[in-house]
Amino acid sequence: MPAVDPVSLTADLVRCASVTPADEGAMDILQKLLSDAGFDCSRADRGGIANLFARWGAQGHARTFGFNGHTDVVPVGDEAAWSMPPFGAEIRDGIMYGRGTTDMKSGVAAFAAAAVDFVRDTPPEGAVILAITGDEEGDATDGTTALLSYMEQTGEKMDVCLVGEPTCPDVMGSMMKIGRRGSMTAWIRLTGKQGHSAYPHRALNPLPAMMRLMDRLASRDLDQGTDHFDPSTLAVVTVDTGNPATNVIPAECSGTVNIRFNDLHSGETLSNWIRDEIALTETEFGVKTDLRIKISGESFLTPPGPLSDLVAAAVEAETGVKPELSTTGGTSDARFVKDHCPVVEFGLVGQSMHQVDEHVQVAHIHELKAIYARILASYFAAG
Amino acid sequence: MPAVDPVSLTADLVRCASVTPADEGAMDILQKLLSDAGFDCSRADRGGIANLFARWGAQGHARTFGFNGHTDVVPVGDEAAWSMPPFGAEIRDGIMYGRGTTDMKSGVAAFAAAAVDFVRDTPPEGAVILAITGDEEGDATDGTTALLSYMEQTGEKMDVCLVGEPTCPDVMGSMMKIGRRGSMTAWIRLTGKQGHSAYPHRALNPLPAMMRLMDRLASRDLDQGTDHFDPSTLAVVTVDTGNPATNVIPAECSGTVNIRFNDLHSGETLSNWIRDEIALTETEFGVKTDLRIKISGESFLTPPGPLSDLVAAAVEAETGVKPELSTTGGTSDARFVKDHCPVVEFGLVGQSMHQVDEHVQVAHIHELKAIYARILASYFAAG
Repeated sequence: MPAVDPVSLTADLVRCASVTPADEGAMDILQKLLSDAGFDCSRADRGGIANLFARWGAQGHARTFGFNGHTDVVPVGDEAAWSMPPFGAEIRDGIMYGRGTTDMKSGVAAFAAAAVDFVRDTPPEGAVILAITGDEEGDATDGTTALLSYMEQTGEKMDVCLVGEPTCPDVMGSMMKIGRRGSMTAWIRLTGKQGHSAYPHRALNPLPAMMRLMDRLASRDLDQGTDHFDPSTLAVVTVDTGNPATNVIPAECSGTVNIRFNDLHSGETLSNWIRDEIALTETEFGVKTDLRIKISGESFLTPPGPLSDLVAAAVEAETGVKPELSTTGGTSDARFVKDHCPVVEFGLVGQSMHQVDEHVQVAHIHELKAIYARILASYFAAG
Repeated sequence: MPAVDPVSLTADLVRCASVTPADEGAMDILQKLLSDAGFDCSRADRGGIANLFARWGAQGHARTFGFNGHTDVVPVGDEAAWSMPPFGAEIRDGIMYGRGTTDMKSGVAAFAAAAVDFVRDTPPEGAVILAITGDEEGDATDGTTALLSYMEQTGEKMDVCLVGEPTCPDVMGSMMKIGRRGSMTAWIRLTGKQGHSAYPHRALNPLPAMMRLMDRLASRDLDQGTDHFDPSTLAVVTVDTGNPATNVIPAECSGTVNIRFNDLHSGETLSNWIRDEIALTETEFGVKTDLRIKISGESFLTPPGPLSDLVAAAVEAETGVKPELSTTGGTSDARFVKDHCPVVEFGLVGQSMHQVDEHVQVAHIHELKAIYARILASYFAAG
């Protein structure tokens, strides 16, 4: 069996229009490849989402290296704005175009190709797990969490895990992730009493209360960052009233804030802070409040150590670039994996992800496969 | 010719569905009545609005008493919620129901009836002018201003003027108006730079700037009121962004404030204050601003004196109630008339105006006609 070509595998996957929650055959391509290569494959599909669990080697082995990634992609957006077919995987001048070429079908193809070749050519003392989901770009309720839940129920365990998301801002190899800030959103609705603009004392305008509350929330310096994290940030993302009448004081006003927080905070401490500020506002202005909070993910850190050293060394060996150990960016499925085992993330240059004409350098796909292969070799060599 | 019945005249007017800018024959009813009674009638229609100018007596006489009022009405609103036909003028238990029964077809009917009877029975040494518009409830751009402009062009002049708007909060005779606060609206749009919620330093969120600006505007104590005026007030009437994505920092945000101001301020001083606060916000936050200001009317006062004494005495003589001299409420066409001559306002109990089942006590229409008749008699007796 010849080496698996990660470029044609990427192209095969890109040609499946797997916009969340659709799969369009993407998972079957991977399942066939891995089954044929001797991986035990199981489907942990849930809620209409395709999830593939694949293990080579003995279940429960202490040295089990895991890869995690996703085959679903974000919508095409304005298809007319694309200069290439978004699900065509066409290659021009060494660049492959299409939705998912960076985020992250090439990442999945690279680690699947690396794993297949690795276990065939140098069967390790241990196991390799691939946990691949079709629900990362959406609400992620039936994705990696479903795979982890399946693993817990069936006694599967990863020793360490690498998520293959694009992590490099511009230069291949320049950044890996050893954690992520947490993310939470608070929807706040303040209610007062409608009235006539000429008689504000007979009404209770919720807007001054909202302005004061949001000003307080936005003005707080949450922190200055920590050893491995950027400062936490709060963004007031919208405030809306919808009152077209200038002679009417409105009864209601809504506002939303999104917080990205580091390891000095948790969803709970920040929720309590917001509740305290709201209580102050209620006392000060007499308004009533509806509050809804969603914590999309807590912050987490896999402190620099053996796993990050191993990945960084492999990246530097293949690219000549020493990757920065970062915790920047939004959320990823690493926020779920971190409760299972130490997890880091490394992948392609992510510049074009989610954009029109998303693309990847073909050479980078080969390079990424080589990096993943070197990571596997180093991991099992150390064992 | 018998005395004019102000109740049937009110009913005739109410039956014309003269929702601004419609007239539906209302002005013709008044024009015929006044012409037949010897008034010189001219139409100062403008922009599709019916405006009636009527004078009894010699043009340019030094003693010329003017009445001002409007025949247009606000929309019916939820017609199904009315218990009586909104343009039926039906009378039940001494109460007439219909749109405009208080605001202010009964007021127009009462002063027209009083004027016709007065000049016929006791022709005065002087003149009586009725300036009646069909555009008060709307933008008022082609209403009383058109009449005043017509008067200026044709050499017509009122010595004093009474606007027959409803002025009494609850008890007939309890309040007259000797001025009004001014009113202005400022529409503010702040522009920053869109971005991702996770990277606020790469974006420029206009919302914190809007929150701070509005908080400052809303927090300022404009004044404590003056001898004849309530405190000035500022209402934040709406703030809107329209951003549904919690991971996106919006580029724009809009807010509107409405200010009701007394004689310590002017539209210009308040506009300058808003511009100063915006300049501060631009410096502090780096946002850009679009500002639009509309001054609906400056504050004005007809200081207590001969005119208010005369009106108050007539009200007290007819009702037994000494009217409070007030400047409360929204705007009225008195804000235009005050540039022409001293002006006060007196009329019915306004409780049901603009509401479903707007209504008037039939007895109050008779009482109002008697008050207006007594005002005319007193005015010309003093001459």
